[in-house]
Amino acid sequence: MRPDPRDVVFQKLLERIEILGTISSSDHCLTRIFLSREMDTASRLIQSWMNSAGLITQVDGMQNVVGSWPSENAQSPSLHIGSHYDTVINAGKYDGTLGLLLSIAAVELLQQEGYQPRHFINVLGFCDEEGIRFSSTFLGSSYLCGAFDLGMLHRKDRDGITMGAALEARGFDTSSINRPPALIQEDDIFLETHIEQGPILESLDLPLGVVDGIAAQMRIKISLTGKSGHAGTTPFPMRKDALVAASEMILAVETLFAQNPNARATVGYLNNQPNAINAISGEVDFTIDLRHPVTAGLNALFEKLESDLRRIARNRSIEMEIDVMQRTESIECDRDVQKAISKCISRHQKRLTSFTSGAGHDTLKIAQTCRAGMMFVRCRDGLSHHPDEYTDPSDIRSALDAWVDVIREIDQNFPSKKAASSMEQKPVTQSSRS
Amino acid sequence: MRPDPRDVVFQKLLERIEILGTISSSDHCLTRIFLSREMDTASRLIQSWMNSAGLITQVDGMQNVVGSWPSENAQSPSLHIGSHYDTVINAGKYDGTLGLLLSIAAVELLQQEGYQPRHFINVLGFCDEEGIRFSSTFLGSSYLCGAFDLGMLHRKDRDGITMGAALEARGFDTSSINRPPALIQEDDIFLETHIEQGPILESLDLPLGVVDGIAAQMRIKISLTGKSGHAGTTPFPMRKDALVAASEMILAVETLFAQNPNARATVGYLNNQPNAINAISGEVDFTIDLRHPVTAGLNALFEKLESDLRRIARNRSIEMEIDVMQRTESIECDRDVQKAISKCISRHQKRLTSFTSGAGHDTLKIAQTCRAGMMFVRCRDGLSHHPDEYTDPSDIRSALDAWVDVIREIDQNFPSKKAASSMEQKPVTQSSRS
Repeated sequence: MRPDPRDVVFQKLLERIEILGTISSSDHCLTRIFLSREMDTASRLIQSWMNSAGLITQVDGMQNVVGSWPSENAQSPSLHIGSHYDTVINAGKYDGTLGLLLSIAAVELLQQEGYQPRHFINVLGFCDEEGIRFSSTFLGSSYLCGAFDLGMLHRKDRDGITMGAALEARGFDTSSINRPPALIQEDDIFLETHIEQGPILESLDLPLGVVDGIAAQMRIKISLTGKSGHAGTTPFPMRKDALVAASEMILAVETLFAQNPNARATVGYLNNQPNAINAISGEVDFTIDLRHPVTAGLNALFEKLESDLRRIARNRSIEMEIDVMQRTESIECDRDVQKAISKCISRHQKRLTSFTSGAGHDTLKIAQTCRAGMMFVRCRDGLSHHPDEYTDPSDIRSALDAWVDVIREIDQNFPSKKAASSMEQKPVTQSSRS
Repeated sequence: MRPDPRDVVFQKLLERIEILGTISSSDHCLTRIFLSREMDTASRLIQSWMNSAGLITQVDGMQNVVGSWPSENAQSPSLHIGSHYDTVINAGKYDGTLGLLLSIAAVELLQQEGYQPRHFINVLGFCDEEGIRFSSTFLGSSYLCGAFDLGMLHRKDRDGITMGAALEARGFDTSSINRPPALIQEDDIFLETHIEQGPILESLDLPLGVVDGIAAQMRIKISLTGKSGHAGTTPFPMRKDALVAASEMILAVETLFAQNPNARATVGYLNNQPNAINAISGEVDFTIDLRHPVTAGLNALFEKLESDLRRIARNRSIEMEIDVMQRTESIECDRDVQKAISKCISRHQKRLTSFTSGAGHDTLKIAQTCRAGMMFVRCRDGLSHHPDEYTDPSDIRSALDAWVDVIREIDQNFPSKKAASSMEQKPVTQSSRS
């Protein structure tokens, strides 16, 4: 008896996740950073898998991998499907990788069953979503939308190498960036699937979920200057202890939760100086990561927080600087795409859930150009950016089954270019944000 | 007109402080650590200055420098005077150094005026008070009291070199440690002067103060284990944020002050993991430095604190380990020595103050063997262990004038060996602690 082709593709998918999980710059953990030798290796592997799925591959001017379905009857606009193939330092093997490899597998299954797409279909592997090397955001998807910020070419990595020099060193021509027409156009549709990186699906006992939008985000750096001194000799009224002030502020950040259940507020990084067992802390830097489903909510949250922090600093005679390092507006996923994803998931699981992604994704960037939607896959303990990141094979199987349906559903029901232009009256949330 | 000899010695003292402040392992700051090449250089300089003050010098089996006043009429017991000549990393030039060089200068003045001491007088330069290299306490003074812990010879520095190997490499014979009779015997008296390293004298507008004792001290390491996770995706009720727990604990440490004005409680060191802007903190280690004028007070304080910390950890489902790294009992300075120092200071400044040292000193160790006393000299902003550490020359002059008087006063009035044994009924606080 011949095995079910879907089982074969699914087994290959699991194997490919493992293989890509070994392509690392480090012997000790998975680390695959933008423009590294290992990204070259990964790119070649991904292209070979795309080829065996029946796709025609190319690498664009920034090491994004593009696999195009060759189809004589396809019409524009295009349907793009994908995720990123770079990782954080000491990463898990599902973040990004799962969505990209699952999309290749889904397309392979559709090709095997002789499916004839109505639209141009591209599977996209983004070169830099994590932004580790140049502290950037969504480089690969920005490039594909023709929205790459050319100023980024001068940004340096930790070794003082500019992004421009790093691109040239890998054989990319920086003079042509943003020149050719962007692959992703405003009438197109983009689909991404990704591990949730959070615990909500697990807590609901559901393998798959629909993403209704991506939260607005701020990254803030707080720099406190108190006065260092000898721990044994300085009486309390004479102290200006920067670490105690930081502690009171960290608790103030926490109380934001109590007031705003939809918000996320996290102090993840803290640097204390002089950091000696017998010295009062003179300086503390820490960061606050703030998220909220809608931009206006985030702004209100930040305003309240800022006033709390200023009060604490004043009461303790601590100097404080607040530096807003990054602000990203929220996006809403396209409602029709959400409905289509829900419909396909409902064929494979009984209950449905949709929620806002607190984590940023390439979808956040691309939704500023065209209609976009996302599906989340459950991961264990909500853990990601960690070697123990894990998604159960049975959940990956559910995701593959649903994702094949989603691609077919969207391809068959989303408007062709002509129809799309007749639909301009329809509110398209993202257009107003781009 | 010939200059006043006291002015000449005082100017030499100021110059020597500057010279010793340049003997450093680092080009950028003052760092002079136990058994370094720079300690050799400093030891040779100190010996040359002792020689020119009329002292006969030797280096003992642990690089303590001993300068003895040659005197035919002197009787035991001995009067020892001194302080340490090692430094912390990135140190100031007064901590330890001032007390040692000031003692050499005071003896030089006494010699110049033809003073004939009744007792054996030794000026001592301790080789390791700061304990930087081997995380030790009071190595030099322990050795001189015959109380060196031989187990310390196996302790390793950051490069994996044992203290025994480091001693041998500098030409010291570790097999003879603790063998010869200790220089400091129980009938002796020890005198130390040191910068205050705190802001009390400055706040009282006084150059000099009497130390009535040295506080009991505990160093505690708290290790918290929560659960790391993605800052954008983990809802509040699912978090076990180790840094937020640490913050609540740090504020609990602070509230100890409100309840105990004599106590000092400081969180100086904190290490947060993974310490990434977008990751919930999974692990935090921090230290608590606790001090109290008396050991019983410190123990009560710690008991209360421990129960507070356990409650916070329990409420937040955070695992906590408490490691008491160090416990030092308080000592009281000898009452007669305190009186003598007060009397001498009162000749040079109108108001008197005495208080407990929150900082540890070699006196703490030596007071376990013999009667001991200390005088503090004002330092700017209470700052020490910092390149900006500073004591005004006019305060150094006051200290020199008073210290000459203190040495003479004690030498003339403290009992000779015979008298001392007849005084055994007298309560000697330190004996009960040794």
